[in-house]
Amino acid sequence: MSVRPTVDFLLYDWLSVDSLNQRERFADHSRETFDAVLDTCERIAREKYAPFNRLVDTQEPHFDGEKVILPQATHDAQKAYADSGMLSAAQDYEIGGMQLPYSVEAAANAFFAMASVSIGSGMLTTGNANLLMAHGTDMQKRVFALNEFNGRFSGTMCLSEPQAGSSLSDVATRAVPDGADSEADPLGPRYRLKGNKMWISAGEHELTENIVHLVLAKIPGPDGKPVPGVKGISLFIVPKKLVDTDGQLTGERNDVALAGLNHKCGWRGTTNTLLNFGEGKYPVRGDAGAIGYLVGRPGEGLKCMFHMMNEARIGVGMAATMLGMAGYHASLDYAKNRPQGRPMGPAGKDPAQPQVRIIEHADVKRMLLAQKSYAEGALALELYCARLVDEQHTGAPEAADDARLLLEVLTPIAKSWPSEWCLEANSLAIQVHGGYGYTRDFPVEQYWRDNRLNMIHEGTHGIQGMDLLGRKVLMENGKGLQLLADRINATIQRAIQVPELAAHANALGKALQDVGAATKAAWATGNPTDALANAVPYLQAFGHTVLAWIWLDVALAAQAQPDSHARTGRLAAMRFFFHYELPKIGAWLQVVRDRDLTCASLPEDAF
Amino acid sequence: MSVRPTVDFLLYDWLSVDSLNQRERFADHSRETFDAVLDTCERIAREKYAPFNRLVDTQEPHFDGEKVILPQATHDAQKAYADSGMLSAAQDYEIGGMQLPYSVEAAANAFFAMASVSIGSGMLTTGNANLLMAHGTDMQKRVFALNEFNGRFSGTMCLSEPQAGSSLSDVATRAVPDGADSEADPLGPRYRLKGNKMWISAGEHELTENIVHLVLAKIPGPDGKPVPGVKGISLFIVPKKLVDTDGQLTGERNDVALAGLNHKCGWRGTTNTLLNFGEGKYPVRGDAGAIGYLVGRPGEGLKCMFHMMNEARIGVGMAATMLGMAGYHASLDYAKNRPQGRPMGPAGKDPAQPQVRIIEHADVKRMLLAQKSYAEGALALELYCARLVDEQHTGAPEAADDARLLLEVLTPIAKSWPSEWCLEANSLAIQVHGGYGYTRDFPVEQYWRDNRLNMIHEGTHGIQGMDLLGRKVLMENGKGLQLLADRINATIQRAIQVPELAAHANALGKALQDVGAATKAAWATGNPTDALANAVPYLQAFGHTVLAWIWLDVALAAQAQPDSHARTGRLAAMRFFFHYELPKIGAWLQVVRDRDLTCASLPEDAF
Repeated sequence: MSVRPTVDFLLYDWLSVDSLNQRERFADHSRETFDAVLDTCERIAREKYAPFNRLVDTQEPHFDGEKVILPQATHDAQKAYADSGMLSAAQDYEIGGMQLPYSVEAAANAFFAMASVSIGSGMLTTGNANLLMAHGTDMQKRVFALNEFNGRFSGTMCLSEPQAGSSLSDVATRAVPDGADSEADPLGPRYRLKGNKMWISAGEHELTENIVHLVLAKIPGPDGKPVPGVKGISLFIVPKKLVDTDGQLTGERNDVALAGLNHKCGWRGTTNTLLNFGEGKYPVRGDAGAIGYLVGRPGEGLKCMFHMMNEARIGVGMAATMLGMAGYHASLDYAKNRPQGRPMGPAGKDPAQPQVRIIEHADVKRMLLAQKSYAEGALALELYCARLVDEQHTGAPEAADDARLLLEVLTPIAKSWPSEWCLEANSLAIQVHGGYGYTRDFPVEQYWRDNRLNMIHEGTHGIQGMDLLGRKVLMENGKGLQLLADRINATIQRAIQVPELAAHANALGKALQDVGAATKAAWATGNPTDALANAVPYLQAFGHTVLAWIWLDVALAAQAQPDSHARTGRLAAMRFFFHYELPKIGAWLQVVRDRDLTCASLPEDAF
Repeated sequence: MSVRPTVDFLLYDWLSVDSLNQRERFADHSRETFDAVLDTCERIAREKYAPFNRLVDTQEPHFDGEKVILPQATHDAQKAYADSGMLSAAQDYEIGGMQLPYSVEAAANAFFAMASVSIGSGMLTTGNANLLMAHGTDMQKRVFALNEFNGRFSGTMCLSEPQAGSSLSDVATRAVPDGADSEADPLGPRYRLKGNKMWISAGEHELTENIVHLVLAKIPGPDGKPVPGVKGISLFIVPKKLVDTDGQLTGERNDVALAGLNHKCGWRGTTNTLLNFGEGKYPVRGDAGAIGYLVGRPGEGLKCMFHMMNEARIGVGMAATMLGMAGYHASLDYAKNRPQGRPMGPAGKDPAQPQVRIIEHADVKRMLLAQKSYAEGALALELYCARLVDEQHTGAPEAADDARLLLEVLTPIAKSWPSEWCLEANSLAIQVHGGYGYTRDFPVEQYWRDNRLNMIHEGTHGIQGMDLLGRKVLMENGKGLQLLADRINATIQRAIQVPELAAHANALGKALQDVGAATKAAWATGNPTDALANAVPYLQAFGHTVLAWIWLDVALAAQAQPDSHARTGRLAAMRFFFHYELPKIGAWLQVVRDRDLTCASLPEDAF
């Protein structure tokens, strides 16, 4: 069993991604070239990733005092990934890229996430280099970004600090100009950085020749103190090893030291680190501090970084999605082969008859269809968002701007929804396996542990909820929300004409109204404390409504196809979502509408 | 912070357990003697269990070829438990017991589950011995049960087999009479057993002098074949080491061999085993097969075993509950101490102000209050059920019979509800910790992993759902359901007179009607395939309705107390349940009412 038919259906039959070749940037592409990329990635994932997923869980990264040791399999997998050219898939031909649409790139990367999410492909490295392509100088692009795209260097994002996880305004890492000639460095204005960064994925390893850290830090103002708040934050390139203007290592180690490895519940194939910048462990060029090169202008660090974070959020959503998919496939396979129990009714009363396979039990079917509905629905959502990224980058101006704004509204859902519901899918995958699912002899408990990270990193559920209800649905006078409502209504108008879908179209219309009414009610007092007290239930209801829309739209595409098992399955997964899931929004929206302060107003001592 | 005040409030102020001393069996008891037991158990749990909870997770049981090695801490903890006399707490004075009510015993054991669920106290051993006290001969009681109560021996339940997890009718272990004198053995009719048993907790270790396995097996009929179905199942005592009629080891090892240790996702302090009975690894008394002594009559094995399983199910519910409580306390403590971010509104705009502790954020409060509502509500439910056990055993005849029937209906909820919602609580505890919660430096990820077992063992959610909707709500012409409805209505009648509770009372009345209507609708066609297709959503809705009732009843007791932080907190947790949770039943009941066959009717190839 492969996820490929689902990917193909969504990309081509639903999103018509092959028609992107009508655009100049993708003119050399066709379904054939896209398929070749998907084939290659599917093969590498199958051969170099999937077989080692349990191994990277048991052979956690460790520090031998000098180096961080990772399994050989991780080295091999990441080399195969880099050799495939996927790190620069979306880049221009002239710098060695494939000019691949982001939607195809995202689909191709999905195979790696499904095979072994924590071996990892190149999400951080690509995102890091993309940021430099957008905000770096030509020299920074050439020296750093291009060497990330070709796999020589890898990249990190260094935002969080131990005392300030999600609160970026409290970043305490400081950057001061590095001497009189600091402005004249060809790699960019040169600073010395001091501070500690926490939760840095791939922060230390020997997988690549060098590591390019992108670090948020504050430049002290004229009074010598860091500027308070996010306005004071700037962005710096801090390479692990210093390089010259040709991108060659100078032989000098920069003052970036591993302070500790985080030992996680899952996702153990990826090193996660606490890094000390400029603490003096590796003094460099006779002075204190880690050497860093300013990217963009002082004080615009967060703006630059957010360029990277939105793609990272879609990437996290896709990772969560494919873990859900992996659990679905594993438990479906198990259910088709494991005999246990007998059917209900008279046929099941005869114990002399052999046991049936558990897929014949209604509750097992329910748990499988729920997983299918969550994971394939989430995949559709992620690919839809990826297609919006292509629209934003290559569409006509108005369409591009609409895509930008739709992405603003949908990104919190693309990040949060799969992280919650594909985790639930993984729990159901364990449940289908019974006791076996709870053992480390089967893969599903690891999927579940791995997936638990996704509700936390790249902005927690709480952060996504505040972003959605506190910012995204309000921005540009609510235009993003209105654009989304227009798209949902367009789907409803088409579906209402299909007898099999009409009732669902009506249910979606009602849900959309309810979300709209709750949005208004939340802000009726104009007081953020009232509105945002239930931002997470709002996020959950909004997410379920978006997924119902995605499923209805996918169903329209499925409906149009000739009869097949796959068509039957997709329509059933859609019906599952409308019958079992969408009605859940009532409970979530009620507290939003009521501006319920049961939690927010409870005094601390009463807990 | 301690859970003790909550336990005291529920036991004494809500359930009036101290009034049990008006009954003859408990006449020597008083609140003072109960408190002394609780004090002792709280202390042992704090000193011998809690400090080693992470250690038993990392030092998993292993087999050195001869023995299963467990950490010294586990030996020490279980010795302290046995020394406390808790193994025989509920037994008669004349055999060394304390004649403690089950409700107090259950409350006392809750401290161990909270401190380290997988070090374990004596649930299986006590349950095993209780079963022998109910169904064994005097000799079996004296030789086996009494030595379990005094801690010399420990006990197991051997039901599942590799090819038949939940499907007991497919048990393939065989038992044949052991020679001509087999009926005359003073320890009970002697048989030889052959077969494999899977998922046996504490199936092999050196914690006690001997292990008393209670094994389900089939005695071949006159045709030499095992009787098909559950009717052919009998129950046997199979000691790991043979004993004489004084309970002394004879020096003979019985033919029970460890075939493998299960390596689990969590709950790693408890050995979980695959055992081979009678495979010839330890030939005994010159013949093939493990020696076992029949308990009760042939063919009545399941009936005897179910005596043990109902208490075991309440025990699993309590374990899940206390893991939820442990996560709640850990995350509350973290939230009170971790500074991060700033309040909403103008006060939070000034980045020069110090960060606030995260308990000041509304969404963190929501996650904490949800945990409180789940864990303390579940604890109330478990203690309520434990109090029913006391009523069943010591109440007046009619009250005792009502208690028996109420327990039949409530046991599936007592087992399943905490296993689902206190797992959700543990996930929220991780979320409150952010990235730190995902590391093994904090206890919450282990609680979450440990708790995932509880939805599986002692009957999965699927089994509990079928039991509830397929059997319990129908049995004795629906009298159990009617009894429960009467109790719920009695609470509603009291609450409706309290202005602060009246709206909740009405909401509960509506929920009860909806559950009743869904029950009828599910069975409207009389076809179990229709009715039971959505047995799990029914179980979830039924569970939430029961918990709403429990909370309303608890709130009546809280309401009556003088103002305090604890009172405020309890009433808020109740309101949380009514505002955020009870409305969820609508979505679950809809598919039950509609007899929705979206899942059940989907052909296998369409997945």
